[in-house]
Amino acid sequence: MTERQAYELLQLDSRETSLLASTAALLGWDQSTMIPPAGHGHRAEQLSLLSGLIHERLVNPRREEWLARVEGSGLTKDLHSAEAANIREWRRSFDRAVKLPTRLAVELAKAASLAQAAWEKARPENDWHTFLPHVETLFRLKREEAEAVGYEHEPYDALLDVYEPGETAASLAPLFSALGRSLAALLEQIIAANQSDLDRGKLMQGHDSQAQEALVREIVRDLGFDFSSGRLDISAHPFSTTIGPGDARITVRYQKADLVDGLFGAIHETGHALYEMGLPTEHWGSPAGESVSLGVHESQSRLWENFVGRSQGFVRYLLPLVKTHLPGTDSATHRELYRAVNVVSPSLIRTEADEVTYNLHVILRFELETALLRGDLAVKDLPGAWDEKMQHYLGITPPDPARGCMQDVHWAAGLIGYFPTYTLGNLYAAHLFAAAQRDLGDLDQALSQGEFLPLLEWLRTNIHAHGMRFSPRELIRRASGEDLNPERLLTYLEAKFAQVYDL
Amino acid sequence: MTERQAYELLQLDSRETSLLASTAALLGWDQSTMIPPAGHGHRAEQLSLLSGLIHERLVNPRREEWLARVEGSGLTKDLHSAEAANIREWRRSFDRAVKLPTRLAVELAKAASLAQAAWEKARPENDWHTFLPHVETLFRLKREEAEAVGYEHEPYDALLDVYEPGETAASLAPLFSALGRSLAALLEQIIAANQSDLDRGKLMQGHDSQAQEALVREIVRDLGFDFSSGRLDISAHPFSTTIGPGDARITVRYQKADLVDGLFGAIHETGHALYEMGLPTEHWGSPAGESVSLGVHESQSRLWENFVGRSQGFVRYLLPLVKTHLPGTDSATHRELYRAVNVVSPSLIRTEADEVTYNLHVILRFELETALLRGDLAVKDLPGAWDEKMQHYLGITPPDPARGCMQDVHWAAGLIGYFPTYTLGNLYAAHLFAAAQRDLGDLDQALSQGEFLPLLEWLRTNIHAHGMRFSPRELIRRASGEDLNPERLLTYLEAKFAQVYDL
Repeated sequence: MTERQAYELLQLDSRETSLLASTAALLGWDQSTMIPPAGHGHRAEQLSLLSGLIHERLVNPRREEWLARVEGSGLTKDLHSAEAANIREWRRSFDRAVKLPTRLAVELAKAASLAQAAWEKARPENDWHTFLPHVETLFRLKREEAEAVGYEHEPYDALLDVYEPGETAASLAPLFSALGRSLAALLEQIIAANQSDLDRGKLMQGHDSQAQEALVREIVRDLGFDFSSGRLDISAHPFSTTIGPGDARITVRYQKADLVDGLFGAIHETGHALYEMGLPTEHWGSPAGESVSLGVHESQSRLWENFVGRSQGFVRYLLPLVKTHLPGTDSATHRELYRAVNVVSPSLIRTEADEVTYNLHVILRFELETALLRGDLAVKDLPGAWDEKMQHYLGITPPDPARGCMQDVHWAAGLIGYFPTYTLGNLYAAHLFAAAQRDLGDLDQALSQGEFLPLLEWLRTNIHAHGMRFSPRELIRRASGEDLNPERLLTYLEAKFAQVYDL
Repeated sequence: MTERQAYELLQLDSRETSLLASTAALLGWDQSTMIPPAGHGHRAEQLSLLSGLIHERLVNPRREEWLARVEGSGLTKDLHSAEAANIREWRRSFDRAVKLPTRLAVELAKAASLAQAAWEKARPENDWHTFLPHVETLFRLKREEAEAVGYEHEPYDALLDVYEPGETAASLAPLFSALGRSLAALLEQIIAANQSDLDRGKLMQGHDSQAQEALVREIVRDLGFDFSSGRLDISAHPFSTTIGPGDARITVRYQKADLVDGLFGAIHETGHALYEMGLPTEHWGSPAGESVSLGVHESQSRLWENFVGRSQGFVRYLLPLVKTHLPGTDSATHRELYRAVNVVSPSLIRTEADEVTYNLHVILRFELETALLRGDLAVKDLPGAWDEKMQHYLGITPPDPARGCMQDVHWAAGLIGYFPTYTLGNLYAAHLFAAAQRDLGDLDQALSQGEFLPLLEWLRTNIHAHGMRFSPRELIRRASGEDLNPERLLTYLEAKFAQVYDL
């Protein structure tokens, strides 16, 4: 077998595995948007069969043969070529898959399924004690997973690495602690400004779903979401998924009590979809055609949601659209709308948090997860530790676990080591937005006129087109010209909220 | 390996294969209802991979081992047990799959794909000469398929057997010729009655989609379609598909020019879905849990569409609903509505044909297909032969091939030997409706009050619950107490249209 033949076998195998995964993606999309209630049992069986078929391929021993043939060959000479990236990533996923004992993979899947069902029931009932043993089991099994796949410094690193290749607890700690300190200080300043008149008020409330939908569709289209290559639907929890080239789908929910949730949720998911739509189609089905990490994915959604969507310029574009689509908003001013979408306030729920406090929610989770995995904290002591940190970072205490340590589905789903990618996304986005302004000139004027294409093209060239060819940090360094640091995000937030709150 | 172990391996294999097929069904449903235009290329790749995986399983040589172990064992003692039916059907599909050379299967799939694309383009342009070579290729390849899988009397039988197990050209010929003669005579009588005032007129025209949709949803629900276990959507061509237990989906289209198309199309697809919803869930994934044939499937859709939907009783139930949902219908009478949904008129297009002429369209196709496969007719001579038979059976001549021998997609799709199942469905339905009336008493009163459940329960008990345990003819014989004959359908049509047309 020549190197080229081995490479082509790997590529075919990778492509077929991706086709199965993209089939599972459609089953998942349908499950969240279209499926009739009685169809869930069968859907779980379909998904379980597909995940079994995908796993069989991931651990196929012939991959080892093929990989051994291409590694160190001429194909890997140029470190950042599509071929080198593919070979590196195929190796990474093969090694991880074969190191994880089948017994543990099955136990994890089962435990996560039971824990999610328990969470669905226990959270609304505020029943931490029923949920607790599930969380204990999952942290125990994920620690076993970390031991099985291996790590250099601490177990957390083995879990984080799946979501953000190359990052470790130690690489994040200095970033997060600097960010946490400064954001807590900024939050104190904002609270001290004591502007209780600044709330979303009537401008964001009472708009019916149809009016919100019409507004959202116009904006999503303007941002560059191509409806001939995608769909926008309604689901209980907004998400973005990609079925394949030419088929990216986002969902949104409309709440009468809050336009911000639907509107900025839609912009967020559009950011994810634009990344997927911008990946190099010619590499579809191999790592060179895939998004590089959850952090970079989140940088795209956050960039469009916050750096664009909550900017002065964008609000100038948004105001006439709001007036056209939403009755009773005729007298709204730019300043009112700008402030309404930029309210900062310490709150209990991460997913509803503003730009300043959001990262504090994430840092809290990062600190708790690392302590749990190091054995410095017992799962049963989570509620107390949670509340303590909420008080420390945000100055508030959850009235119950449902609005405290039971609010997220992540731990029940076995997604441990996942939360940091949200804040990494914000950090990356700050670098990228600053770099785009450096290259394109001040974007405020363009955004106010609904000209989003130059920014999208910049992201396509500097981020989307590269697939997995660079590590996340390297990708951000190349695009922004500097190493990842917390200053970019802090400078942006401090300057922005000085404006919003007249600090 | 014990018999029981071999049986369980077959069952697991069958279940997983069905899960893959049901996944393909969802991909297909999405492709007809939801997919964005640019997503079709990727969808074709997903479907092609799945069909490859399914084929691999169908020809898996271990099936032969397992089958050899269970055949003739105690499991097959009771001929009509689920186990015996499963073993018989697994053998049938395995033998057929392994007899078909892979080379031929690939050629057929490719030829059908090319022919359908050619048909899409050639039909609106009335371009028979471009389409001709595709039809020639498909008839040649399907004849090869017949030779490869084998037959007793003539090649047609090998093709028909896939759709209607147990039937042959020779078993259909006497049924169809008796039916053809009598229907042509009935049609002449109707034409002679010369009631040109009887047309759908304003009652069926000009209703907008939303009003039609509201009417259709109410009726579909009343018929017993459970929206917690199914969906109703819009597609270019109405169809019914089943994703799995608890998930049956139908589609419909609404045309302003003709309420009948949407309304009776929806009732027809509901009939298919009710069959699927009534199959024994405990046998899902094995033949004992599957519909027995296309003819029996069609008997369910036709029974609800015609024997119920176009009856005097049903129209009494329908009239107030029409008046509620469709503006401008206040003054309609029962007689007007009954006649409007029962217009008989020789027409060019099979899918738009009425109860009397529909079977003539099918008989014509059956006669042409058998002649083509026997070599008594050349594909190039199809248009002339078609027109001659149209004149013979319906007294009209198509003005162009688009409304003649190019109207159906079936031949382009390689569905040769498929048409007879439509008329078998009508014949079966006549038997079943008569038998249900025998068991339940005259249904007219119940239908007029929207009481459909007794009939549905009768069908569930006598047809749906049996899966593939009996051959189609045996199933109909058991349910109706008599051998299949054309008289049941003829008696029903003659009595009914004497009423409609005052013959």
